[in-house]
Amino acid sequence: MTQMSDQLPGVAGLSAQGVQRLPGYYNYLRDRRTNQVRYVSAAAMAREFGLNEVQVRKDLACVSPNPGKPRKGFLVDELLDSIGQCLGYHNEDEAVLVGVGKLGSALLAYPGFGEHGVHIAAAFDIDDAVIGTQVANKTIRPLSDLPQLLARTGVRIGIVTVPATSAQAVCDLLVSAGIQAIWNFAPVHMRVPSGVLLQNENLPAQLARLSQLLSRRPLTESA
Amino acid sequence: MTQMSDQLPGVAGLSAQGVQRLPGYYNYLRDRRTNQVRYVSAAAMAREFGLNEVQVRKDLACVSPNPGKPRKGFLVDELLDSIGQCLGYHNEDEAVLVGVGKLGSALLAYPGFGEHGVHIAAAFDIDDAVIGTQVANKTIRPLSDLPQLLARTGVRIGIVTVPATSAQAVCDLLVSAGIQAIWNFAPVHMRVPSGVLLQNENLPAQLARLSQLLSRRPLTESA
Repeated sequence: MTQMSDQLPGVAGLSAQGVQRLPGYYNYLRDRRTNQVRYVSAAAMAREFGLNEVQVRKDLACVSPNPGKPRKGFLVDELLDSIGQCLGYHNEDEAVLVGVGKLGSALLAYPGFGEHGVHIAAAFDIDDAVIGTQVANKTIRPLSDLPQLLARTGVRIGIVTVPATSAQAVCDLLVSAGIQAIWNFAPVHMRVPSGVLLQNENLPAQLARLSQLLSRRPLTESA
Repeated sequence: MTQMSDQLPGVAGLSAQGVQRLPGYYNYLRDRRTNQVRYVSAAAMAREFGLNEVQVRKDLACVSPNPGKPRKGFLVDELLDSIGQCLGYHNEDEAVLVGVGKLGSALLAYPGFGEHGVHIAAAFDIDDAVIGTQVANKTIRPLSDLPQLLARTGVRIGIVTVPATSAQAVCDLLVSAGIQAIWNFAPVHMRVPSGVLLQNENLPAQLARLSQLLSRRPLTESA
């Protein structure tokens, strides 16, 4: 099995933590652009993210060939473009989604996937009450149509938003139909063949982590 | 601002990547327990996760005081307990959620938050069509009730699932009402005062990353 946590996308010279900071920088720069700001300094970004300025400069040097102008800083548009490139936001790719319950519907309607390069091309379910209905302008198809659609379109990414009990079966079906990467939201251990990428989105773990960080803070800070 | 990416919860001796592996180990062990398996070996776990056995042993040594039995391995129940402890799954905590659209409803109905220690205690919206309705056995309250509820209950974690355009305003309201940690799903740059924890859940960035990893794989592998 190929686990994602050990496969951070390579940005030459940038640490795993550095790569994790990039989406935050991206959203900040987009916000600056919306506010008609043309230049940002590493110092301003460091303040905004509670980081050391040297750290920010190091991160940016890895993603952008342009070192920024003295006293002005980095061109917002250019930096957005460089970071977007690093994060794969400029790719054009497609995914299919299986399981149009509450979470699946939410992902179908979630704004921003397209803007970040990946469109959800089709959505599937096994529930007759859901099949044929429209969610976010997509007609939900029966799961039995999946192999044919994948054979025709060559979509390589599958999003799994089915209940835990059927997640492995859906995952197996996706893989047998040619899917090469799975984004799994079911809170279970999934098995995929070697060579298939598996990314688990463990939402309860994220929330538990936040609670844990909060409970471990020095008392003076939470007072 | 306190950014989460630079604040992985401390597990003595364990790297940031090691901490990220723990939720996967946890789900695997839970699956083993469901299948009545009492012991697991580091070798079996290494195979399962495509990791080096030494790496797995190192990870487990950091979380569990028990080194495992020769030829048997680790007691599944004990290891589950130790990892759950490390990940904060044994905490009992509560959160409030603001924005009961598709994503908010999905989180309210998502199984597993409670099992991982954090219960969503109450949910709020500003839409009269939503207020008063039931989602996952919770009555949605008007956002104006939020300060009073927080004052009464002392809940410290806020989940933000409102549209991007109102995310900052909701975040400001949560902070002014005493929230100390925010889990934000809106794909925008958010500002919180120093001392407030902010964790951004950037779903489009995750999907873009999967697409990018796939496109960067050696051709032989994807053939």
